[in-house]
Amino acid sequence: MFEKPTLYVITDEKLLKDNLIDAVKQAIEGGADIIQYRAKHKDTKDMYEEAIQLKKICDYYRKPLIINDRIDIALAINADGVHIGQEDMPVEVARRILGFDKIIGLSTKNLNQVEEANKLPIDYIGFGSIFPTSTKEDAKVAGLEQLKKAMEISLVPVVAIGGINEENIEDVIDTGCENIAVVSAVFKDKNIKQNSKRLKELLNKKKKMGF
Amino acid sequence: MFEKPTLYVITDEKLLKDNLIDAVKQAIEGGADIIQYRAKHKDTKDMYEEAIQLKKICDYYRKPLIINDRIDIALAINADGVHIGQEDMPVEVARRILGFDKIIGLSTKNLNQVEEANKLPIDYIGFGSIFPTSTKEDAKVAGLEQLKKAMEISLVPVVAIGGINEENIEDVIDTGCENIAVVSAVFKDKNIKQNSKRLKELLNKKKKMGF
Ligand code: NI
Repeated sequence: MFEKPTLYVITDEKLLKDNLIDAVKQAIEGGADIIQYRAKHKDTKDMYEEAIQLKKICDYYRKPLIINDRIDIALAINADGVHIGQEDMPVEVARRILGFDKIIGLSTKNLNQVEEANKLPIDYIGFGSIFPTSTKEDAKVAGLEQLKKAMEISLVPVVAIGGINEENIEDVIDTGCENIAVVSAVFKDKNIKQNSKRLKELLNKKKKMGF
Repeated sequence: MFEKPTLYVITDEKLLKDNLIDAVKQAIEGGADIIQYRAKHKDTKDMYEEAIQLKKICDYYRKPLIINDRIDIALAINADGVHIGQEDMPVEVARRILGFDKIIGLSTKNLNQVEEANKLPIDYIGFGSIFPTSTKEDAKVAGLEQLKKAMEISLVPVVAIGGINEENIEDVIDTGCENIAVVSAVFKDKNIKQNSKRLKELLNKKKKMGF
């Protein structure tokens, strides 16, 4: 799943309205490696219909599609996996429902949660927020030093998340982490393909320099 | 499932807070035949944990537990089925995910939707609102005449829903419908067991009188 470096792009229901499908297409064409569909305040039917369309695009470009929280949507559209937060379904239950073929990622916010995650049947963890973020206003900042420690501790790949943009992405990569999750850095304006491309270039540039 | 008369009790996240589990216990002890767990604005983890507890109570009293909308929660706790609204997962998809052992109910609001429901793999329909309701403020009133027609048209059992209480329940039963769904009529105050018992008595009284 994580052929480094990985640009992991998460959709946002505030930033993306009717343009969701095209926005994700642009993000992939710019360089996104994995798409996570995240919606918290939509009817299930709307989520299902959006996810079905995203699945078609992701299949076309051969990119994994991960569904945030909603295992029912993931099952309904045969997504590649789910991303689970600490307030979502317990991971063991998610694994039982989804089976062992699907990817399960878990959000972690501190090193205790990373250690707990090591005992769980998951494929990767998200760790953050790395920086302050507008997408999740209540997110606590974990910072780059904690990210380094998370990578030392974790038995599965670590995806850095939270406030990462083209100004600070190189600082993240300097920690050795090449799995980078972004939301607004890609979807903040209409230049989605360009935003995605620029972030991917910065990721690749760093990699060529020896990480 | 519907051994007439059936008192179908739906939980409400505004009326029930920390007392959800005890409230459902009281409702069953008063006479509730089926419980539907409905939550729209809770974290998935909280829904899972509440549903797990409700399952234990419903199993103890041998009453079916139906989950509103969330097929992931239904699968997670091995509920007896799901209740799906017109804005939820398409019924065919729900059936594919849940399998044929589980109950699927569908909300219908007018006779067109009842006719559409006849083509779908469902076990019952809800029909309403029968009366104006405070629980779902946007619900359109279908009325008792439409309920009669819905029962004529429907190929599956019809559960009358929406604004039914002990003042008007006999009018509903007079239509020939003995499957009655209630929310606030049971959970409106602390006398949950009494409210449930009173509604069940009215249902049973009418039945003895010849329906
Ligand atoms: Ni909400």
